[in-house]
Amino acid sequence: MNEFLSSLTTLLGDGGVLVGRDIDGYLLDQRRRWQGAALAVARPRTTGDVAAAVRLCAEHGVSIVPQGGNTSLCGAATPDTTGRQLVISFERMNHIVEVDAANDTVTVEAGATIAEVQAAARAANRLFPAEWAASASARVGGALGTNAGGVNVLHYGNMRELTLGLEVVLADGSVWNGLRGLRKDNTGYDLKHLFIGAEGTLGLITRAVLRLYPVLSARATALVTVTDPAASVALLRGLQAAIGDRVTSFELISRRCWELLAEHCPELPHPHAQPPQWCVLVEVSDAGDSDALLERLAEALMALDFDDALVAQSEQDAQAFWALRESIPEAQRRRGVSIKHDVAVPISAIPAFLTEAEAALKAEFPTADIVAFGHVGDGNLHYNVFLDDKTNAVYADEPAINHVIYRLVASLHGTLSAEHGIGVLKRDELAHYRDPLELTLMHAVKRALDPRNLMNPGKVIQAED
Amino acid sequence: MNEFLSSLTTLLGDGGVLVGRDIDGYLLDQRRRWQGAALAVARPRTTGDVAAAVRLCAEHGVSIVPQGGNTSLCGAATPDTTGRQLVISFERMNHIVEVDAANDTVTVEAGATIAEVQAAARAANRLFPAEWAASASARVGGALGTNAGGVNVLHYGNMRELTLGLEVVLADGSVWNGLRGLRKDNTGYDLKHLFIGAEGTLGLITRAVLRLYPVLSARATALVTVTDPAASVALLRGLQAAIGDRVTSFELISRRCWELLAEHCPELPHPHAQPPQWCVLVEVSDAGDSDALLERLAEALMALDFDDALVAQSEQDAQAFWALRESIPEAQRRRGVSIKHDVAVPISAIPAFLTEAEAALKAEFPTADIVAFGHVGDGNLHYNVFLDDKTNAVYADEPAINHVIYRLVASLHGTLSAEHGIGVLKRDELAHYRDPLELTLMHAVKRALDPRNLMNPGKVIQAED
Repeated sequence: MNEFLSSLTTLLGDGGVLVGRDIDGYLLDQRRRWQGAALAVARPRTTGDVAAAVRLCAEHGVSIVPQGGNTSLCGAATPDTTGRQLVISFERMNHIVEVDAANDTVTVEAGATIAEVQAAARAANRLFPAEWAASASARVGGALGTNAGGVNVLHYGNMRELTLGLEVVLADGSVWNGLRGLRKDNTGYDLKHLFIGAEGTLGLITRAVLRLYPVLSARATALVTVTDPAASVALLRGLQAAIGDRVTSFELISRRCWELLAEHCPELPHPHAQPPQWCVLVEVSDAGDSDALLERLAEALMALDFDDALVAQSEQDAQAFWALRESIPEAQRRRGVSIKHDVAVPISAIPAFLTEAEAALKAEFPTADIVAFGHVGDGNLHYNVFLDDKTNAVYADEPAINHVIYRLVASLHGTLSAEHGIGVLKRDELAHYRDPLELTLMHAVKRALDPRNLMNPGKVIQAED
Repeated sequence: MNEFLSSLTTLLGDGGVLVGRDIDGYLLDQRRRWQGAALAVARPRTTGDVAAAVRLCAEHGVSIVPQGGNTSLCGAATPDTTGRQLVISFERMNHIVEVDAANDTVTVEAGATIAEVQAAARAANRLFPAEWAASASARVGGALGTNAGGVNVLHYGNMRELTLGLEVVLADGSVWNGLRGLRKDNTGYDLKHLFIGAEGTLGLITRAVLRLYPVLSARATALVTVTDPAASVALLRGLQAAIGDRVTSFELISRRCWELLAEHCPELPHPHAQPPQWCVLVEVSDAGDSDALLERLAEALMALDFDDALVAQSEQDAQAFWALRESIPEAQRRRGVSIKHDVAVPISAIPAFLTEAEAALKAEFPTADIVAFGHVGDGNLHYNVFLDDKTNAVYADEPAINHVIYRLVASLHGTLSAEHGIGVLKRDELAHYRDPLELTLMHAVKRALDPRNLMNPGKVIQAED
């Protein structure tokens, strides 16, 4: 391996290869659940660097773990414990290559952060709408690898829908240039969709052409109490009928979230005298004037009999509502370790999921403390369970809790990963719940593109015998 | 083959297998360019029927050509001339399986027409936005196979973006049930995207879960004269800044289109005293009231200095504008046979494409009569060329004309098929213009899913040696 490392250093130059204690930060995931080891961390500056490094890995049979902002929640970007893998970090490939405002596209390197892409769009008076808690540190390559979602999916779609073209370094080091900035292109198999969501197991995304949108100058925000989750779905449909598909966010929040915020984030304001059992944070966006939009939202809420909705009267109010929503993860962190789920079901099945999941969990774990919130407009709920133990020891109960949740999700035709991906965390669960034929197809695709299993092996699907 | 046909008849029952003169209509494409032959036409009623027929084909080494509404413009649904293929028609699998209004989805069989899906959505007070000239006869399976586009792509996307789940019969007759109705599902490789746009070469789509949208009760329509194509792109961006991303259609029309309409469709009204060199048909859609939207559109056009825009003052006006746009293909048909192109370039490159294409064509074909129109908001132009000869004999010049157009498209990073697909018409052009590595990847995928090349062979990509 000395020969491998010295060749790699020759290829990538000064600062291009890290070893020893310098790589510690790359070996542990952000939730501190997976501690890996590695031969080294490669830090390419160009697609050519990546291709050369991959060719060298192929020659030496070294497998590769790509890493962006290291914000995976599933261990997708952490090397295994053998110390025989190479981590390729994209942190030095973070350029905005080109903004084409007339085409409403931006071409970026895989290491640009989501926040950097947003800023480049803003500078050209355009909007890049991807947004989630980690968007300041998450990088484009990882966001594409997991097809990340967030709070604006309802209107704009996931990272997949925001992508028009990709450049990918394949397992043999060849470079596929699919950097097309086209909204329509029906010329055979759409290969980019293979790499999006594949978590680096089929190739390494090095550049992408992403969609931009008109800046929406007006927004209106409200916290709306609903009697139950079914009423939240009815509210969404009623609002869409009244004000069109400009509802851009629609986030369900359960009472337990407000209680956690009050207890663990006392620095934040409390909008309700009594936290409601269920409420929804609604945001609508439009061009033009915020006052007109605010009036239209308020009228629609009145017409739908939500007279007691808290409608933000200022940008500050709106920011305060969002700060509460976005602090729920932090409030949970302060409470301790929980078993987290990122599930989706058909929107019409959300009420059934919430009722049945609570009943089934409480039957097996009477002290379970359930924190449920999420992107109900997408059918996506974050469903987290605290038990009495607030330390990592609680993970001992994770398989049993997962069993309750995922069995129910499967019966409702849902998914055990809506936006976080599979990584190592859910790989075996996926194999258990998914139709074997679908796994067979995934393995066929994997064999076709990475026959030697050198690309992020062990993530998403298990190696074949 | 007698044994094959008798087994097939046993499987599919009365009316399930057509032979002889009964199959003539299935063997010729709608443009009457490709005349094929076939063993028979199978007309399954269920996914189980399709699977059984495919298994039988696999046993006998019979290759399969799937056919929906037979509206392909590229010969994708026509069998070859050997008479040894089986056409599988989905015309008897046309059920709307379920509308889930709360989930905003509809589950349909592959043989339902686009118009039938639109009607089912409307009956549930929802919108299925796919719409193009052939939507009354085009069927879902074919529309997905070619990832069809149309006039509402700007806002709603192509068929690919309208699809959440698929059921597919694979080459060995096994059935992949990926009928999930989820907006977020990050659980490994997203297999549905392999089959969408593959024109039946990787498997047969039997059912789909499609997205629905809120009905938009208001629309406003205008014909806006622009000085040149660059001004049309600026108009689009200006309108989006003024009224948000609710511009749902944005169709460029050249003077030659108006002249053809006047000459060949004299029954239609003529909105202009003098047909403009370039104009755009704009449609904006919204919830709420049409008058308010109309006012907003008119104000935005005034503010952008398009005071002379013709704004439809009634639903009848709007329908008349659309009738003109949708009669352009008919006017062309009445004029004679032309060489058609369905290209897309980055929206920012449309002005360059139109200028350079005309210059290059006129240099080689001084009498070329160019009819250009299309979905400029998507970068997609229909670019059709008449020569002196108005009969099929004109196809002798097709390779030379294609060479001019496709070379230019390639230099502008565009595509030679935006929404019609490849079929047999553009298969060899695709092989010529596309990066060989991309073709290698397509062949690898094809081998992985259809190793015996039984699924619509010879379409999209050539058989490997």
